[in-house]
Amino acid sequence: MKQSKTFIPTMRETPTDTEIASHQLLLRAGYIRQHASGIYHLLPLAKKVIRKIEAVIQEEMEKLEAVELAMPIMQSSSLLEQTGRWSTSEKELFKVQDHNGRQFAVGPSQEELITSLISAEVNSYKKLPLTVFQIASKFIDEQRPRHGLLRSREDIVKDAYSFHTSNESLQMKYDEMRQAYANIFARLNLQVREVVSLGDGMNQEPVHQFFSISDAGEEIIAYSDSSSYAATIETAEVNIDYKKSTELQKEIEQVDTKDLRTIKEVAAFLNVPSSKIIKTLIVKTEDGLVAVLIRGDHELNMEKLRSVVSSSKIEMASEEEVATILSCNVGSIGPVKLPIDLKVYADNAVASIVNGICGANINDVHLVNVNAERDYAVDQYADLRIIQEGDPSPDGKGTIRFAKGIDVGRVSKLGTIYSEALNASYVNEEGKEQPFVTGSYRIYISRIFSALVEQFNDANGIKWPKKLAPYDIHLLTINMNDEVQKQLSEELYHLLTSYRYNLLHDDRDERAGVKFSDADLIGLPIRLVVGKRASEGMIEVKFRDTGETVEWQKEEITEKLQSYFRE
Amino acid sequence: MKQSKTFIPTMRETPTDTEIASHQLLLRAGYIRQHASGIYHLLPLAKKVIRKIEAVIQEEMEKLEAVELAMPIMQSSSLLEQTGRWSTSEKELFKVQDHNGRQFAVGPSQEELITSLISAEVNSYKKLPLTVFQIASKFIDEQRPRHGLLRSREDIVKDAYSFHTSNESLQMKYDEMRQAYANIFARLNLQVREVVSLGDGMNQEPVHQFFSISDAGEEIIAYSDSSSYAATIETAEVNIDYKKSTELQKEIEQVDTKDLRTIKEVAAFLNVPSSKIIKTLIVKTEDGLVAVLIRGDHELNMEKLRSVVSSSKIEMASEEEVATILSCNVGSIGPVKLPIDLKVYADNAVASIVNGICGANINDVHLVNVNAERDYAVDQYADLRIIQEGDPSPDGKGTIRFAKGIDVGRVSKLGTIYSEALNASYVNEEGKEQPFVTGSYRIYISRIFSALVEQFNDANGIKWPKKLAPYDIHLLTINMNDEVQKQLSEELYHLLTSYRYNLLHDDRDERAGVKFSDADLIGLPIRLVVGKRASEGMIEVKFRDTGETVEWQKEEITEKLQSYFRE
Repeated sequence: MKQSKTFIPTMRETPTDTEIASHQLLLRAGYIRQHASGIYHLLPLAKKVIRKIEAVIQEEMEKLEAVELAMPIMQSSSLLEQTGRWSTSEKELFKVQDHNGRQFAVGPSQEELITSLISAEVNSYKKLPLTVFQIASKFIDEQRPRHGLLRSREDIVKDAYSFHTSNESLQMKYDEMRQAYANIFARLNLQVREVVSLGDGMNQEPVHQFFSISDAGEEIIAYSDSSSYAATIETAEVNIDYKKSTELQKEIEQVDTKDLRTIKEVAAFLNVPSSKIIKTLIVKTEDGLVAVLIRGDHELNMEKLRSVVSSSKIEMASEEEVATILSCNVGSIGPVKLPIDLKVYADNAVASIVNGICGANINDVHLVNVNAERDYAVDQYADLRIIQEGDPSPDGKGTIRFAKGIDVGRVSKLGTIYSEALNASYVNEEGKEQPFVTGSYRIYISRIFSALVEQFNDANGIKWPKKLAPYDIHLLTINMNDEVQKQLSEELYHLLTSYRYNLLHDDRDERAGVKFSDADLIGLPIRLVVGKRASEGMIEVKFRDTGETVEWQKEEITEKLQSYFRE
Repeated sequence: MKQSKTFIPTMRETPTDTEIASHQLLLRAGYIRQHASGIYHLLPLAKKVIRKIEAVIQEEMEKLEAVELAMPIMQSSSLLEQTGRWSTSEKELFKVQDHNGRQFAVGPSQEELITSLISAEVNSYKKLPLTVFQIASKFIDEQRPRHGLLRSREDIVKDAYSFHTSNESLQMKYDEMRQAYANIFARLNLQVREVVSLGDGMNQEPVHQFFSISDAGEEIIAYSDSSSYAATIETAEVNIDYKKSTELQKEIEQVDTKDLRTIKEVAAFLNVPSSKIIKTLIVKTEDGLVAVLIRGDHELNMEKLRSVVSSSKIEMASEEEVATILSCNVGSIGPVKLPIDLKVYADNAVASIVNGICGANINDVHLVNVNAERDYAVDQYADLRIIQEGDPSPDGKGTIRFAKGIDVGRVSKLGTIYSEALNASYVNEEGKEQPFVTGSYRIYISRIFSALVEQFNDANGIKWPKKLAPYDIHLLTINMNDEVQKQLSEELYHLLTSYRYNLLHDDRDERAGVKFSDADLIGLPIRLVVGKRASEGMIEVKFRDTGETVEWQKEEITEKLQSYFRE
């Protein structure tokens, strides 16, 4: 392809309102342009890379006997109403009304559609299991779109769905999918971590997510420095056998803590580590208020608490709600002499505190030398806190570290959630109606494309891996008005095209400096420069990855290229 | 692919509410399913065929140096407001509002988007011409969706756009595109006619449309039986040298025509052919009312009239409007003694009427023996009627016939309409700002898919051409519980797969009759049946196209297939 004939609008300057490398480089190198907030054009170079990513995914899906189809983007509201998504995801849905007043969502994902379709057509266990997939645009009215394609409102996604007669069959497909995803990311050269995480939406089961580790990521991953263990920080369990101090229990005392607002301030004032402080939080559950005790240096994990108290929704109690049971402000709450009917949950770490410090349920007063059982009761100890860097890995191997990650895919066991909501059933071997057991498997293609740029770049631009580059070779002609250069370039173009290389030929009437910096930005793996030494049949070669420069004779070029691309 | 693992929900019965073959067969053979009115799932077989169609189109576009990109589906209202489409296409647009109250259309087509994008990035004549294309879903809130994918609300479309500095450059690309379209349809085995037609929307220039001739089509094409001439009936010019009868002019007379309502009734009553009658119509233009005379056996072509009177909008005058200038009802209007300031236009055919019949501008009265010039004046004669079957072809070759056609593609010269509306300009060689000269080129992919089924079917199902079939070969095992049959089938499957054929293997536990009729429905070009004679290594072969059945030995199968697929 001649560069003069294609559309690669490069930019010299770093665009304003961009923070991360992939966003900046994809704009600067002419891969994407914004149309509206969170909505982008994929320009020709991007389209080429994305087609390559899609091809890898398609191949891996087909290996699993998943069949490709295409569901509509317009989704009738009725199905989404049956699963409740029409109202629970209200904010995220782009809603449309047609000329007859019928309501549609511009498809966020297709669980309802596919479950209803399969239910209408597959009536017997004989036709199961069945796995389908599609590659399509997905629409989410993201409240704060940012970072280019990493957090956008129109994404290219591969979504697959599987239908089974049993959890065992689902588990098999789920494991196959996890492996397929690992294969996909390996083939795409994208470094990812497989992470245990919480289900989203209606799904309460843990799922496996794939994160590309990157400072551009917005999720925090807790991973072991010595094993494959990784989880989102909301999910990671804390598995520590806290040792109780051998310190003798002292007598409880009141201290005045006026003007001390934070745990840090209280700890400093009393000259103790914040791990001696017992934080007491009042939380509102479906069954009313509860108290939760957390060590001063820890943070409550609401999701763990929600699971322990078995409440589908929980939130911190408001000041007004706290006032209904206690007459002090929230900074002075403590576990001693709480109302007798208030259930008390405590994180496992709290049990090990001897002579602790806590609020006295009186404004501006704390208690010191507080001890469990002697001074206060706990109804249930559990793992209730967020994991921290330095904690031992829950699998017993190594220490937890944190990293930021870009969510690039997830596999979820949905079980019968959607099929029950939609009355989607088949007839089993005994002639009985059974809901389908289902799984859902997503890969975010446009996000992977960005994540790859995060991983493969330097100060000058993108550095595409060979298999994903939009073209294999960037051929630069320094001066298209020089007949010798022009002729050698055209000769090379035809020669290499006949060897099945895809070339981008910079035939533009631009300064050499512009051509070089554009080539660095665009990031093809190898650059062939036809310049002054064209008359000797000599070509300058630059490898984008290493920056190494060599010279090749015209006669040796096909052989050299073959050995480079074989590597 | 094993048929038991894929998703091909065939149906025995013809579905209700379906009229045309492609709609019925695509449903029955398990290629599509309706989600909502005019909105369809493309099931695995359809997706495969459509991918093949897309690949052909992509190749032909790339030969023209058109570059592929992907524009967003969500289109900000602001651009559509600039061209007026936001209000003029109100009914057709699916409109969405985001959480910030910003308005979007779910993309009907992308003229505004691409013109604005190119305008922002291409500032110099040096970067022109430029042609881009994409393959994407398009959304039109079709008022009366019908016939499956032929008239739907979510279509797969290839749309290309070209940008130029001159009309000559546009004309070159336009002609190249016409040729590329002809190549595409030839490669797809779709019989089409290239037809001159009117531009749509903002575009007033004639365009070339491609119609697949089919009774399932909804547009009427006028074509010559002896040349390549073809046009939509709205567009076809009438090019006839009407001969004036040699009959002597008689005296004008009044006749009572009470209770005669139609031209046919008046003609029968007076015992004359309806070609002797002069129909007089009152039409409302931007500049007020005009009278239009048309021969009784002809129909007014409003579009031709609009062009002759140079009014951007015209319509038939209402009874109330007619009453402001004439005191009779519309059935009794005639050209004699019309108000002096009413402009009179007449179709060329009217000039040849001698001793004609017309309304007397008095209720229930007609005039006979009316003659132009002597009895009434005409301001302008022009070609104002709709072409009819039997008319001579306007190119002078042969006779006009009518046929119904499915609109499968169009090429349009937009000129500077969109670029002027959007202030889209570049700087020319003299340093002057100039609006881009643009073209737009569409192919309706999902409609082509249906049109192919209209063309390739019989009473039993679809008959795919070899290059477009979702799989090359349908392998049927009559009894999967018979070890010999099963083993021979698997052997064949592996053998033929290694020869790069794509096979669909009917391994289902179904009766032979079901397998045969499903195979006919699905329509793969060749069927290999492994049945009773499996023990002798004998395979029954049926060609879907001809229905011919033969038997092949296992040993000769690859050779026979090669010669069949080479044909």
